[in-house]
Amino acid sequence: MSSLSRRVKIVEVGPRDGLQNETEPISTKAKFAFIQALAESGLQEIEATSFVHPKAIPQLADADTLASRLEKIPGVIFSALVPNQKGLERALQAGIKKIAVFTAASETFNQKNIRMSIETSLKEFEKVVTQALKAKLTVRGYISTAFVCPYEGDIPREKVLDVAEALLQIGVEEVSLGDTIGAASPRDVQETVGFILKKIPAHKLALHFHDTYGTALANTYAAMELGISTFDTSAGGLGGCPYALGAAGNLGTEDLVYMLNRMRVETGVNLHKIFQASSLVSAELKRDLQSRQWQRLKAQSADDNPSAVNRKSLFKEEP
Amino acid sequence: MSSLSRRVKIVEVGPRDGLQNETEPISTKAKFAFIQALAESGLQEIEATSFVHPKAIPQLADADTLASRLEKIPGVIFSALVPNQKGLERALQAGIKKIAVFTAASETFNQKNIRMSIETSLKEFEKVVTQALKAKLTVRGYISTAFVCPYEGDIPREKVLDVAEALLQIGVEEVSLGDTIGAASPRDVQETVGFILKKIPAHKLALHFHDTYGTALANTYAAMELGISTFDTSAGGLGGCPYALGAAGNLGTEDLVYMLNRMRVETGVNLHKIFQASSLVSAELKRDLQSRQWQRLKAQSADDNPSAVNRKSLFKEEP
Repeated sequence: MSSLSRRVKIVEVGPRDGLQNETEPISTKAKFAFIQALAESGLQEIEATSFVHPKAIPQLADADTLASRLEKIPGVIFSALVPNQKGLERALQAGIKKIAVFTAASETFNQKNIRMSIETSLKEFEKVVTQALKAKLTVRGYISTAFVCPYEGDIPREKVLDVAEALLQIGVEEVSLGDTIGAASPRDVQETVGFILKKIPAHKLALHFHDTYGTALANTYAAMELGISTFDTSAGGLGGCPYALGAAGNLGTEDLVYMLNRMRVETGVNLHKIFQASSLVSAELKRDLQSRQWQRLKAQSADDNPSAVNRKSLFKEEP
Repeated sequence: MSSLSRRVKIVEVGPRDGLQNETEPISTKAKFAFIQALAESGLQEIEATSFVHPKAIPQLADADTLASRLEKIPGVIFSALVPNQKGLERALQAGIKKIAVFTAASETFNQKNIRMSIETSLKEFEKVVTQALKAKLTVRGYISTAFVCPYEGDIPREKVLDVAEALLQIGVEEVSLGDTIGAASPRDVQETVGFILKKIPAHKLALHFHDTYGTALANTYAAMELGISTFDTSAGGLGGCPYALGAAGNLGTEDLVYMLNRMRVETGVNLHKIFQASSLVSAELKRDLQSRQWQRLKAQSADDNPSAVNRKSLFKEEP
């Protein structure tokens, strides 16, 4: 275990990546309460919203209002997705200090997702990133389908490295590699991330796993063994997956925090407070959430039987 | 990846460990259909039932009838749990060729589970194992709570090694280490299994993970890195967990098969046939099952929208 980082940084993406995949929008007030509860859990960074066109993602159409209220919550970096210069202007207007631009490692996916080739998207983002850096913002770059694409199948690791290097070259400070359809295995992580690490240092990379096929924690562990220490997760596993209806979405923040607690890897994040935050969204959406921990904690809190073993348990679930 | 085994043996425990944790018993006929469907998936070994006293586990009270019908299914090793000499007699009578005895690494758990100290249980099982070996049966030994106990918390790895060595000494041929409440992390696996492997070769060990806390596949991967190549799983993740109501049970067979397929590790097991087998039980129990793959495949098969991406996907889910 000596090669594993003693501390992992969790980037909470539930308010953006989670809520944008929910069919029904929830109110700005509920989103703010969710983000406030997340901030109280000890999270250092929360991706709060996206400045895409309101018609593209109606669920996040309140980005300007929501983002401008976030300055009331101290001590947390709030970031937002920015698709173009118009989006950057809105983000600056709302007082956002960190933005994320996004492309893909699969041409077909990028065309379908943002109607541009990867090359064109990088050119467009170059202007956005330059302007953002001038305004003293921090910039993250997402690479979707970094392992598997629903249209193209397996993505060559050389292609992922090319896109990652291109993003760093236009000024992006951290690249987040996304397993968009959640289909990767620890072997994919070893092969692709291991290859990229020959050229890009670990501290410039984050991993963004989805749990559609149940492999997200195994992939996280494989990435930690390679020296990665930043992971994107979503409270409650919010998000679903548009390419596999009804299936699980992002890796649940609770699930990662539990595993890391047990591994004595620090996150600074309180598991029960994340559960409380995601439970607010569960109540708004009127549905159960999908992270294993959310379901377990909900079952436990609903269990009124005083003879249940877990009431007398000496097993400490948190450090 | 060179250290990982190219082939993993899956021991299917759904009919026993899965169904014994279901509140409602299902009919012998339905169980037989389930086992037959499992056998068609390519599984080499299936733990079919348990010869405990029918009053102790009414769900498996049909052990004698069920087991005696299994000879109709060729090419699969069918095993059964045997708690004592009476159980062994019943197993022999029914034509069972492999039995499993069971103790724990936690004194408190063993007392509550089978009302004996670990030492007494080993003495009792010594007679059973000797007799079973004389009758040319194969014998597996389970160690429950090999990592964490709901009553005692973390279990010292020295204790687990002691019990494993004692089981081997009384003639058990394979020891299955169980994470009974599903609370272990890859670090626990490295520390406990790594320690045991200094004294016991990998081919004498199996790992039996539950997915209550979502860590089962991560733990499996950590165990594979240590050279373990036998894993117990349950179709559909059947089983629940009596110590965390409503939470996930055994690691789902579908989930493990998917991950191993993606890692190019052979299992000989067909994922969709496992899904078909567990769907039979889902229909009997009138509830959804909990493995990630079961839920994903169910959502996919329920999706009648011809424009859904997964219909056109070039991503091959099976080799």
